[in-house]
Amino acid sequence: MTKKPLILVTNDDGINAPGIRTLISVMNTIGDVVVVAPDSPQSGMGHAITVDATLYVNKVTFDDGPQKEYSCSGTPADCVKLANRELLTRKPDLCVSGINHGSNASINVIYSGTMSAAVEAGVEGIPAIGFSLLDYSWNANFDASKPFVKQIVLEVLKNKLPNDVVLNVNIPNLPKHKIKGVKVCRQAKGNWVETFDKRQNPMGKDYYWLSGKFVNLDGGEDTDEYALENGYISIVPVQFDLTAYQALKTLNSWNFNKTE
Amino acid sequence: MTKKPLILVTNDDGINAPGIRTLISVMNTIGDVVVVAPDSPQSGMGHAITVDATLYVNKVTFDDGPQKEYSCSGTPADCVKLANRELLTRKPDLCVSGINHGSNASINVIYSGTMSAAVEAGVEGIPAIGFSLLDYSWNANFDASKPFVKQIVLEVLKNKLPNDVVLNVNIPNLPKHKIKGVKVCRQAKGNWVETFDKRQNPMGKDYYWLSGKFVNLDGGEDTDEYALENGYISIVPVQFDLTAYQALKTLNSWNFNKTE
Repeated sequence: MTKKPLILVTNDDGINAPGIRTLISVMNTIGDVVVVAPDSPQSGMGHAITVDATLYVNKVTFDDGPQKEYSCSGTPADCVKLANRELLTRKPDLCVSGINHGSNASINVIYSGTMSAAVEAGVEGIPAIGFSLLDYSWNANFDASKPFVKQIVLEVLKNKLPNDVVLNVNIPNLPKHKIKGVKVCRQAKGNWVETFDKRQNPMGKDYYWLSGKFVNLDGGEDTDEYALENGYISIVPVQFDLTAYQALKTLNSWNFNKTE
Repeated sequence: MTKKPLILVTNDDGINAPGIRTLISVMNTIGDVVVVAPDSPQSGMGHAITVDATLYVNKVTFDDGPQKEYSCSGTPADCVKLANRELLTRKPDLCVSGINHGSNASINVIYSGTMSAAVEAGVEGIPAIGFSLLDYSWNANFDASKPFVKQIVLEVLKNKLPNDVVLNVNIPNLPKHKIKGVKVCRQAKGNWVETFDKRQNPMGKDYYWLSGKFVNLDGGEDTDEYALENGYISIVPVQFDLTAYQALKTLNSWNFNKTE
């Protein structure tokens, strides 16, 4: 590549989160960086888009880096749409989202605002990667992630992703010398077992807080959860054609057409 | 089945939307119905969950049907979680979501609150179906949908869905005699080409409205979009293992592990 790649950076923890500030600093060593990210945390937003409210965008400056930055009142998917249609002068060579504060491995991918931004970019034909560190705290330490994030991005820019595939990268919360390397994985089968904490507000009305515990239901050694538990960074290729092709034949044998 | 099936009904247009009222009326002819649905419209919410706000639930009555009903301040996925953990006395035999006012065919599945509820149920091991009618208007006519919705639900209860698969059913906006039947399909490749309508608020600050046009990029005759355009109801089996298995080999040949 003779020209520097144009890299769009976004996330779901908000534009001032340490995770995205780390990602921006790494991307500045690789290409021309434009940041379009939510002005406030959007975690758990799934693939939400803003269809019935207004979107505000502000040009902002957070540090003395060379990147251009915009904060947006919308969701991560909104940020990608708005960047592509309104804020960027050309189609970016890559969209990176994160680094999320907390895991997006296994079933978390479907709840993830971080990954929704990557998927949104993928749908629009832009190579995309979502990065997440397995530490939910705001003051998570992203230092060990940096060289791995850089190498993964360089490989994606060099080799080009297969069509209609984006990457879901999760990084164990370990010091660099304890990270054993990078593994390409499938998504582990798992789910959340929720507990609803039922309380009463000062007016005597019941309400709930959602909390829960992730349960890995997958014994496989080729999954993201297994890689992460064993000190590896996991990369899962993610598609947005959700068709369960293996089920088509069975369903075709059913009698859906028997209405009076 | 000797006992009546227990059917959980939800949606994303809100508990008082004509689409869910139609769905409830059909489900009452099949099983014992419990409704847990958002108290206000949630369209475009994707697979959002409420992680940092309180959830309120109210027992409500909208008509003289036999169903139990709860309205919830959360998202469609919240409704399913709350129903399973707090409101239902046993695991439902089926979860149905909709009937959505507007299409969830093709790429719309990833933005769809209707489908996020079905997927959430599927993740928890409950057979699930999302229904959508291709008419966005509040006063859409759901009469023609009824016999097809009933037949599809009866087939699912009889045959049992494959594991980890939920159904995305879309219904063309046609009178009953013009609906040619039901087709099992794959998800069409397509995307939205957005236009952002830029305006100025009374304080002189720019803001945007998101609007756009869906573009079908898929020439296949086995897709949901093709079926719908030709007068058929489409059923796409949807999975929530998003792994792009066909990409694993290629990615394994890349050099992700070359960090200093």
